[in-house]
Amino acid sequence: MRQIYLDYNATTPVAPTVFEAMRPFLTDHFGNPSSGHVLGRACSQAIEDARESVAMLLGAASDEIIFTGTGTEANNLALKGVCQEADRFAGHIVISSIEHPAVKEPASYLNRMGCQLTVVGTDERGIVDPHAVEAAIREDTKIVSIMHANNEIGSIQPIQEISKICRRHKVLLHTDAAQSIGKIRTDVDELGVDLLTLAGHKLYAPKGIGALYVRCGIPLQPVLHGAGHEQGLRPGTENTPYIVALGAAAKLAARSLPENADRIARLRNLLQSGLEDAIPGITFNGHRDHCLPNTLSVNFPRVSGYYLLNRCPEVLASTGAACHSGTEHISDTLHSIGLTQSKAMGTIRLSLGWNTSEEDVQRATSAMISAWESLTADA
Amino acid sequence: MRQIYLDYNATTPVAPTVFEAMRPFLTDHFGNPSSGHVLGRACSQAIEDARESVAMLLGAASDEIIFTGTGTEANNLALKGVCQEADRFAGHIVISSIEHPAVKEPASYLNRMGCQLTVVGTDERGIVDPHAVEAAIREDTKIVSIMHANNEIGSIQPIQEISKICRRHKVLLHTDAAQSIGKIRTDVDELGVDLLTLAGHKLYAPKGIGALYVRCGIPLQPVLHGAGHEQGLRPGTENTPYIVALGAAAKLAARSLPENADRIARLRNLLQSGLEDAIPGITFNGHRDHCLPNTLSVNFPRVSGYYLLNRCPEVLASTGAACHSGTEHISDTLHSIGLTQSKAMGTIRLSLGWNTSEEDVQRATSAMISAWESLTADA
Repeated sequence: MRQIYLDYNATTPVAPTVFEAMRPFLTDHFGNPSSGHVLGRACSQAIEDARESVAMLLGAASDEIIFTGTGTEANNLALKGVCQEADRFAGHIVISSIEHPAVKEPASYLNRMGCQLTVVGTDERGIVDPHAVEAAIREDTKIVSIMHANNEIGSIQPIQEISKICRRHKVLLHTDAAQSIGKIRTDVDELGVDLLTLAGHKLYAPKGIGALYVRCGIPLQPVLHGAGHEQGLRPGTENTPYIVALGAAAKLAARSLPENADRIARLRNLLQSGLEDAIPGITFNGHRDHCLPNTLSVNFPRVSGYYLLNRCPEVLASTGAACHSGTEHISDTLHSIGLTQSKAMGTIRLSLGWNTSEEDVQRATSAMISAWESLTADA
Repeated sequence: MRQIYLDYNATTPVAPTVFEAMRPFLTDHFGNPSSGHVLGRACSQAIEDARESVAMLLGAASDEIIFTGTGTEANNLALKGVCQEADRFAGHIVISSIEHPAVKEPASYLNRMGCQLTVVGTDERGIVDPHAVEAAIREDTKIVSIMHANNEIGSIQPIQEISKICRRHKVLLHTDAAQSIGKIRTDVDELGVDLLTLAGHKLYAPKGIGALYVRCGIPLQPVLHGAGHEQGLRPGTENTPYIVALGAAAKLAARSLPENADRIARLRNLLQSGLEDAIPGITFNGHRDHCLPNTLSVNFPRVSGYYLLNRCPEVLASTGAACHSGTEHISDTLHSIGLTQSKAMGTIRLSLGWNTSEEDVQRATSAMISAWESLTADA
């Protein structure tokens, strides 16, 4: 049974050309980029080339890119790095209710360590209201952190409007763009952000590499301490192979984005209409227009998403709720858009990617419809 | 001109079997280890297998191993994780004067954030006196962090003696074992340590993976915040390929350590006697017996190490001092052992590894002797 991978928002495969680009740095070019000799210099040059490629994808300058170990680490660096003062953390932070734990948890930590925190909600389509952000900003607000696109329901946030507000109030704006980069246009100047997070493994590079864009002139303190790598902001011997991989992935994404986005949106719409036609009472989460082209969050009526996926094991996707020790836990995002418990239990996130074919979509549609029919017939 | 790599303490190549072990996780097995489906489960199982291999190498239990992005991050987690209280950092820390910046800098940060810090010196062979550690311990001391073996001069610290002192005073003991693992026996119970840092790229795994051993029952707080990976101590999607690589490298190291250590020590001694016979006035840093088998820190008389290496570019090694903007900066380790400015400027670290051959050593010896002779003839 050939598997149909519809979980690209969880992680992407490494693109073959990305693997080929990094491979020599796992075999021949193994020097420490800090070494003065020829083996070291080859690696430090490769890192600078990759930095340039990542910067190009974002419309940034290459010295505005700091490589990190994960997207999570980049988010930690953004929030803690802005709130770190000489001998304490201070300031007020604004985030949204649908942020990933990689933003929510650093914000909670800072809150425990002395910062103030305001969490702004969303509407029922998962969109943050810029006016609510403005209302949350105070005299001591240091940073607003609102994700570019939501990982579960794909809703794209009005970052440009939020940016105008932040600039007017002289507050820094960070966006976690882990889910949007490579799927929609993500130019730091168009968006008007000061800090932006990127995660390699959502972009056909490996798991274990991230980057933070830091607008030139923004003062930032490191989260990890050690030797002076990455402009003193991220110590530790550089992961040359994965940095090279991220550079290659950024080039690929820049080149193929418009074409891929159109093709994938068409397949996503095919998937949606196929399910809609066959399953009465089916609904979809998120904003109809302001949504990632690859993401479809589906509420299957009268079934549990978990059991539905169990009935069609060839479809690899995620549920919107998890069972922990017998209790049903609904994700913060589904909670924020006001989904009922029963709808949330029937939620499945289908996320498409570069390798998704029309045949994949047709097979997945049929498999899920059959699974739903057999589950509801049982009932 | 074939290069002779004598910089294994800076970084090692990835062993071919390590590359082959990780490779399928960069191509086929790309799932997110947190995903419930079959692609995710294959990865989470591989991670647990690797954890077991790393634990075996250290004589630990597998749930005592936390994977991190770098050795630097593991050191940060050890020091900050122990000193983190509910809403502040607190406690007294003891480190040595020859710690790597990856320990020294987190300790300085904690000092700025409210912790107290004592730095214990070494003797002229680079060995920390356990009595000095005992004298530094106070009522509020939370952690002592002394490296297992020094990266520059190879001196091996009396961790067992320091451990007895720490246990008597009920103080936690951390050791940065980045340089010793795979070179000498490193069993956490024999050493008597509570926390131990490992860096993959010193052990024939790639750059971008580290681990912290945390003895069962030691309370620790995370440094990075996010989702609950690695027992809540290190959030961020797991770097499956590199974790698998570290597991494979740990297995290799466990199997080949005694044989490699003997062979490499013999080559190191050959290198030392070759240089000693030809260069009058040459001296060596570090302890004659308590020294890593692969490390030779040499003071070439009457020359700068930098110019000497420039004269024999086929020898890839490190100097013990760096020129920054025209001023000569001597490393903390060379300073701690009381090396004069002129000796420190002539210091070169030669570090051997698994791939070093007797021919490499003979060629490097001749090349350095010729370079030294030509430089001193010029003078």
